[in-house]
Amino acid sequence: MSITAGTFQAPALAAEEDDIKYRKNVMKALGGHMGSVASIVGGKAGPAAHLPGHVAAIVDISMMTKDLFPEGSDFGETTALPKIWEDPGAFTRELRMFEAAAATLGQAAGSGDMAAIGAALGELGKSCKSCHENFRQKK
Amino acid sequence: MSITAGTFQAPALAAEEDDIKYRKNVMKALGGHMGSVASIVGGKAGPAAHLPGHVAAIVDISMMTKDLFPEGSDFGETTALPKIWEDPGAFTRELRMFEAAAATLGQAAGSGDMAAIGAALGELGKSCKSCHENFRQKK
Repeated sequence: MSITAGTFQAPALAAEEDDIKYRKNVMKALGGHMGSVASIVGGKAGPAAHLPGHVAAIVDISMMTKDLFPEGSDFGETTALPKIWEDPGAFTRELRMFEAAAATLGQAAGSGDMAAIGAALGELGKSCKSCHENFRQKK
Repeated sequence: MSITAGTFQAPALAAEEDDIKYRKNVMKALGGHMGSVASIVGGKAGPAAHLPGHVAAIVDISMMTKDLFPEGSDFGETTALPKIWEDPGAFTRELRMFEAAAATLGQAAGSGDMAAIGAALGELGKSCKSCHENFRQKK
């Protein structure tokens, strides 16, 4: 059978591309929740009753993050830097700081003290920024 | 004092624009979690251990959605259709279907039965699509 344009099929997505897509979806969720918490804490929009849901999701995601960078997911449509896999010790330290900052936000949210929540959100944001600066390609 | 280009300040964001921004952040989070669950259930990427976190967030967000369309948030950078505010009964019915579909996904996730979770995710996706078709501007 001859191959014609009509029978061409794009290759299936490589497993690594699926890993990258998954990572991006989890980061998208995290970004949405972070932005939501910032709106609520800043008194801009969103009822305070939504806080626990957003914060619980952030804490859950912080514990997922260590699984988001499997070997091989370092090429293709990603801005993750090779340093993640080349210096896993440094990356793990960054992840631990993120997990700790998210846990602190979780505790602050439990207290209902908006000033404490805002401060914890700021610290968490610094942890996001640090990892993005050190382990993500500059935009 | 004369107004110069240097002293120009953009007007503060109107409260309605903050509402729209909040809505978009929550929808962004929802989309990230939905995509994540689809990857896990489809066996593409992401460990099954992440399912409960994503599903809990989806259920939480389904219960927030009714608060995302306050009066006045129908203009500006939004694709929400006026019908949301003009026919609140129809919109509320759509929201109820979404909440119910999310609750069903939550129950399925509790069972750990991947086929049931996949079916519930499909139903939830139909509910998203129905609302987007009926109450969101065509892209």
